[in-house]
Amino acid sequence: MSDFISIQEAAELLKGWDNILVLSHASPDGDTLGSASVLMRGLISLGKSVDFKCADEIADKFSYLFDGIKIKDLKPDKIVSVDVADKRLLGKYKEDYGDKIDLAIDHHAGHVPFGCKIFVDAGCAANTEIMYKLMKELGVEIDQQMADAVYTGLSTDTGCFRYMNVTAQTHKIAAEVIELGARNAEINRVMFETVTKAQMEAEMLALSSLEYYLDGRCAVLSITRDMMEQTGITDDDLDALTARPRQIEGVLAGITIKQKEDGSFKISARTNEPANSCLICQKLGGGGHKGAAGCSFRGTLEEAKNSILRACEEHFKEIEL
Amino acid sequence: MSDFISIQEAAELLKGWDNILVLSHASPDGDTLGSASVLMRGLISLGKSVDFKCADEIADKFSYLFDGIKIKDLKPDKIVSVDVADKRLLGKYKEDYGDKIDLAIDHHAGHVPFGCKIFVDAGCAANTEIMYKLMKELGVEIDQQMADAVYTGLSTDTGCFRYMNVTAQTHKIAAEVIELGARNAEINRVMFETVTKAQMEAEMLALSSLEYYLDGRCAVLSITRDMMEQTGITDDDLDALTARPRQIEGVLAGITIKQKEDGSFKISARTNEPANSCLICQKLGGGGHKGAAGCSFRGTLEEAKNSILRACEEHFKEIEL
Repeated sequence: MSDFISIQEAAELLKGWDNILVLSHASPDGDTLGSASVLMRGLISLGKSVDFKCADEIADKFSYLFDGIKIKDLKPDKIVSVDVADKRLLGKYKEDYGDKIDLAIDHHAGHVPFGCKIFVDAGCAANTEIMYKLMKELGVEIDQQMADAVYTGLSTDTGCFRYMNVTAQTHKIAAEVIELGARNAEINRVMFETVTKAQMEAEMLALSSLEYYLDGRCAVLSITRDMMEQTGITDDDLDALTARPRQIEGVLAGITIKQKEDGSFKISARTNEPANSCLICQKLGGGGHKGAAGCSFRGTLEEAKNSILRACEEHFKEIEL
Repeated sequence: MSDFISIQEAAELLKGWDNILVLSHASPDGDTLGSASVLMRGLISLGKSVDFKCADEIADKFSYLFDGIKIKDLKPDKIVSVDVADKRLLGKYKEDYGDKIDLAIDHHAGHVPFGCKIFVDAGCAANTEIMYKLMKELGVEIDQQMADAVYTGLSTDTGCFRYMNVTAQTHKIAAEVIELGARNAEINRVMFETVTKAQMEAEMLALSSLEYYLDGRCAVLSITRDMMEQTGITDDDLDALTARPRQIEGVLAGITIKQKEDGSFKISARTNEPANSCLICQKLGGGGHKGAAGCSFRGTLEEAKNSILRACEEHFKEIEL
């Protein structure tokens, strides 16, 4: 049985607990790790012992979040998850801890309850917004390292304050943690301005395949296994590129066609209004959201391209474009 | 004779003036246009008549900044420049107005005085931070359109809150204008998420020339006139690319070599610490700042590349890398 509580109640619970295991979600990002960092530093400052677990490896660029934190290998009395929207996102720790979470603190509108006590605030762009407010409730003074951790979540979960999820509160907290010493410029340089050689390679490869169709209203990137093997790039290196074709002036549907290991194709659609990605992909048996959707295709690259372009053309006709 | 005044004094002056011509700098960006928009809207709300001039064409994406502003073709009594660091930046209006500016409002540390009265606050990341504070001094209520204009300056002059110039104040004002109705997500989409086909073409062309030297510590982009003519891209389309080679993991010096119309080469260096762009470019008779510098070269592309690489190699040795 899950019980939704207030942030004041969450703070009261934490004040009474000790030997606390903090869990981040798998494939950890700046917000789940920043949240864990803030929480552990706050709990330690209150004299409590903490442990930390995350199902996947933590990238080197996030290591500063954990500098100086004394993590103990505990037999925990209490378990708290941060920024985990669903127990499946605990990854390999789902079995061990998925049904034993004492407190889940999250900011996802689609939170699927699993914790015993739950505090969800979907009005927060980043989970570290919640952590900042929680520290105030706990009476914890926010030091420079906690300020860094709060800022890391704010910045990485909002594309550096670019996305729709940003509110006045996001900026207010950014201002406050910068005043408390958060190294905003340095954190942004590390998070947004550094790309690997493989990512550059992937970008070149993908962009060199760019083609325009339907009077420039469709832009298509296509990446085959051969292309990937020749350059040694991985699926991860290609992740960020799906957003690119839609960004081009005049493009209504930006399509990325990527060959999977089994030879079939994953087609991703990203649309600008009034085009609708979901309606396009449904024509090929797929689905998703209005702005972003996908489908699968078995056949040759040419056939995949022709099919999705036909779907786009039909869709444009249907919405009278 | 220039006279540096306070923001309160600037507000007092404006209260007493009417028939005011507002000037933005040439090659107008979101901050100079946002500043002009805020100032004109504020002055109009105080019952004053305004005119506006800018030496270069205003891109369509900025047109919302001027929606609904009643600009009159005035014989101005007073002239105010916004975000203009040097009278030369008035472009073709330098002759007519360069020595007739009654009030210059600017945020550049390197401001070269030209106005009769001057208010410079180099602690502001964007000039619209100053305009926001000026409206408060004037007792003007900030409406949704002014909030949009303030936000546009904040966001465009900071790479969307990413650069070193961002302070707590920048975020505080962002929070306040979002509360007043600034359409932050929509403005960021227009300013940062849309590229022209020519810019995409330029990116592909430049990235396809990417080469690594000196054990991956130097990355070089090279663009010849031939390459540009084949694709129809312009110097403007290439502007944003100078930043790219430095962003690659392990790169200390990111070099861009671009052929000019007269056949000579413009070499731009961007470095990560401890490398120093200025020291590198000085070896070829150029100069600049620690992180960004440039020089010119006459000869072939191969010779240009070899010369700058030799300069990098010498520099790396000197700083014992």
